[in-house]
Amino acid sequence: MNTTPQAAGPDAAAADSVADSLGTSAAQARSAVLEELIRKDPGRFRMLTGDRPTGRLHLGHYFGTLHNRVRLQDLGVETYVIIADYQVLTDRDVADNLTGHVEDLVLDYLAIGVDPRRSTIFTHSAVPALNQLMLPFLSLVSVAELNRNPTVKDEIAHSRQSAVSGLMFTYPVHQAADILFCKGNLVPVGQDQLPHLEVTRTIARRFNDRYGNGTPVFPQPDALLSHAPLLLGTDGTKMSKSRRNAITLAADADETARLLKGARTDSERHITYDPAHRPEVSSLLLLAALCQNRRPEEVAEEIGAAGAAALKKTVTEAVNEYLAPIRARRSEYARDRAFLQRTLREGNERARAVADATLAEVRAAMNSHY
Amino acid sequence: MNTTPQAAGPDAAAADSVADSLGTSAAQARSAVLEELIRKDPGRFRMLTGDRPTGRLHLGHYFGTLHNRVRLQDLGVETYVIIADYQVLTDRDVADNLTGHVEDLVLDYLAIGVDPRRSTIFTHSAVPALNQLMLPFLSLVSVAELNRNPTVKDEIAHSRQSAVSGLMFTYPVHQAADILFCKGNLVPVGQDQLPHLEVTRTIARRFNDRYGNGTPVFPQPDALLSHAPLLLGTDGTKMSKSRRNAITLAADADETARLLKGARTDSERHITYDPAHRPEVSSLLLLAALCQNRRPEEVAEEIGAAGAAALKKTVTEAVNEYLAPIRARRSEYARDRAFLQRTLREGNERARAVADATLAEVRAAMNSHY
Repeated sequence: MNTTPQAAGPDAAAADSVADSLGTSAAQARSAVLEELIRKDPGRFRMLTGDRPTGRLHLGHYFGTLHNRVRLQDLGVETYVIIADYQVLTDRDVADNLTGHVEDLVLDYLAIGVDPRRSTIFTHSAVPALNQLMLPFLSLVSVAELNRNPTVKDEIAHSRQSAVSGLMFTYPVHQAADILFCKGNLVPVGQDQLPHLEVTRTIARRFNDRYGNGTPVFPQPDALLSHAPLLLGTDGTKMSKSRRNAITLAADADETARLLKGARTDSERHITYDPAHRPEVSSLLLLAALCQNRRPEEVAEEIGAAGAAALKKTVTEAVNEYLAPIRARRSEYARDRAFLQRTLREGNERARAVADATLAEVRAAMNSHY
Repeated sequence: MNTTPQAAGPDAAAADSVADSLGTSAAQARSAVLEELIRKDPGRFRMLTGDRPTGRLHLGHYFGTLHNRVRLQDLGVETYVIIADYQVLTDRDVADNLTGHVEDLVLDYLAIGVDPRRSTIFTHSAVPALNQLMLPFLSLVSVAELNRNPTVKDEIAHSRQSAVSGLMFTYPVHQAADILFCKGNLVPVGQDQLPHLEVTRTIARRFNDRYGNGTPVFPQPDALLSHAPLLLGTDGTKMSKSRRNAITLAADADETARLLKGARTDSERHITYDPAHRPEVSSLLLLAALCQNRRPEEVAEEIGAAGAAALKKTVTEAVNEYLAPIRARRSEYARDRAFLQRTLREGNERARAVADATLAEVRAAMNSHY
C-alpha cells in the first residue's frame, strides 16, 4: 500500500530499519510461507492495496508494488484497490485536481492489467460504512500507541506537532478500516509499512477479543513484504513526481528518451553494477534489467566501455519496449471516459455492498443493531 | 449536550472556569441575544442535543438540560437528539447492555415530551454518512489543537496517555460531525462544553474557507448556555447514576421517597437556603423549588424550624408530584416496544437522509464526487 499520507523521510526509514530489523526478518520468513500458500490456494486470500491519488504513477511505483499486485491478482487472489482520496486532503495542489488524479490512477491501473471484472477499484470517500469503522476502531487504540507511529514521530521531529493533522495522526486506524472492511487478509507492503499493519492486526485482535463472543469477526491480515528494487530518479535522488525526476507510465517514448538522456551518471566511463559506490549508474542498469527480466550485472557487462551514452540508450529502449503495450492500453482507455467512470462507479458499488455487510456484522457483534 | 465520553472532574472544571471566564461571559451575553431571536423566529434555528446511553436519566439531567430542550422544541426550534452510542464503547458495563440503555433513553425522551413527530431521535452507529464527516474534519485540526481539549488534558493529568483512547482524543471532531451533519446552528451546552463547541465552529469555518468557493457549506453553530442548577446527589456529592445517589425519572414514588429519606443533610435544625455553607440542605430546597416553580428561599421559610424530616417530606412530595405525569407517560410507552423501536427506526432514517444529503454536498465541494 502506498496510502501513507506523508512519506517518512530517509532518516526515519533508517531508524525504523534498526528498530524493526527483527520484525522484518520474521516478516520476510512469513512472506516466503505466504507465497507458497498463495501458489497452492489463492482463493483463501483477499488482498487490499491502494495508492494516494497524487498524480500519474511512475516506474518506481510500478516495479515497487504495481507489478506485484497484478501478479497476485493473476494468480487468483481476490483484489481490492483503494484510491485513498481522504489521505491527500492536506495537499492543496492535489486536492484542487482530485478528479483528474483519481482518473489518472484508474487509467494506470487498467493499463497495467488490473482487471475490473476480478478486482474492485474504489475511492475512500464513496464508502461511508468503511469510514464508520474508524469509530469503534479508534476506541481500541490509545493515544500513546498512535504516537508511536514512525511517520507521525518523524513529522513531529521535523516540523511541529501543529503540522500533524488529526487525519494523519489517526491514519493507521483508518488504514485498519481500509483493510478490515473487506476482511482483507493479505496486504503487500514495504518494510516501512510494517508498523502500520501491526496496528491493523492489533485492532482486529482486540475487536475479536472484545466483541467476537468466540467467533472472530476480522482476520489478522498478513503482511506480504514486497521486494521493492531501489530505483532512483533521473537526478540521482528518490524517484518522485514532485521532483520531476520520474518516468511515468503515461509518458510517451520521446519524453522517456528525453528524461533518460538528461539522467545523472558519473565520470567513470566503464559501466559496472555497483549500487553502493555508483548509485545513479546502478539504478539505470537495474531499470533496464527489470524491463528485460535479467540481472543488472549482465546489462553492465554488455555495455562495458561504451559508457554512459550507450547505457542511456539501452535503458531508454528497454523501458520504451517494456511500457509500449501498457501505454497503448492506457491511451485506448483514456479515449473511453464513460468506461472509466463506470469502472469506478461499479467498484464503489461493490465496495459499498461489502462494507455495508461488514458494518452490519460489526453492529450486531457490538449489540448496537437496534 | 451530554455526550462527552468522560466527564471532566471538578478540578478541570475549576481550571477551565478561570481560563474561559472571558469566553463564558461573552457566551452568556450571546445566549441572551439568542433567546430573544428564538422567541421571535424559532424557525431559523436547528438544535442538536444528545446524551450518552449510560442508563436512565435522572433529575440532574432533567433540570440541567432535558427540560430546556423540550422548552426549545416547544418554542418551534427544529430538534435533533443524538444517542451517542459510539461514546460509551470503552465502558464495558455499558457496552454489554447497549440496547437496554438506548431504549431507556428513548423512553425518557418520550416521557419528558420530546415529540418524535417534530424531533429526530437517532443513534450514532446508524448514520454512516455522519461518521464519514470525521475524515475531512480530522484533516482540518492539528494534533496540537486536539491536545488542548480540557477533558483529554484532565484525563492525561489524572491517569496516563495510554488511558486516553483514540476515540476520546478525537471526540471534539466527532462532535463537530454530530452538529454539522444536520447543519445544526444551535447547541445548548454547559460551560464546560464551550471549548468543544469552539472546535466545531473552527472546523465549520475552515471547511467553508477551504472548500466553500464563496458559499459556506456549514453554519458556525451558536452555544446556548443553559443555566444548570447545581443539584447534588442524596449523599451530598455530584448526582450520578454510578454513585447510586440519583433520583431517576423512571423511579417510582416509593423508591423516590426511600432515596430522599436517606438523603444527607446537616445537624442544624432550622432550615435555611445557603448553598455555600449548607450544600446538602440547599440542594434539597432547590430541587423542591424547581419542581414547584418557585424560589428555594421560599421553600426554606415555609419549613423553617420543622427540620430535615419536614424538608425531606416536602421534597419527596414535590418531586413525586412533578414527575407523576412524566412517569405515567413513561410506563405507557414502556408497554409499547414496537412504538419505541419504530420511533428510533424512523429517527435513524430521517437522520440518514439528512446526513446523506450533507455528505453529497461536502463531496461536491471537495471535488470528490467522481
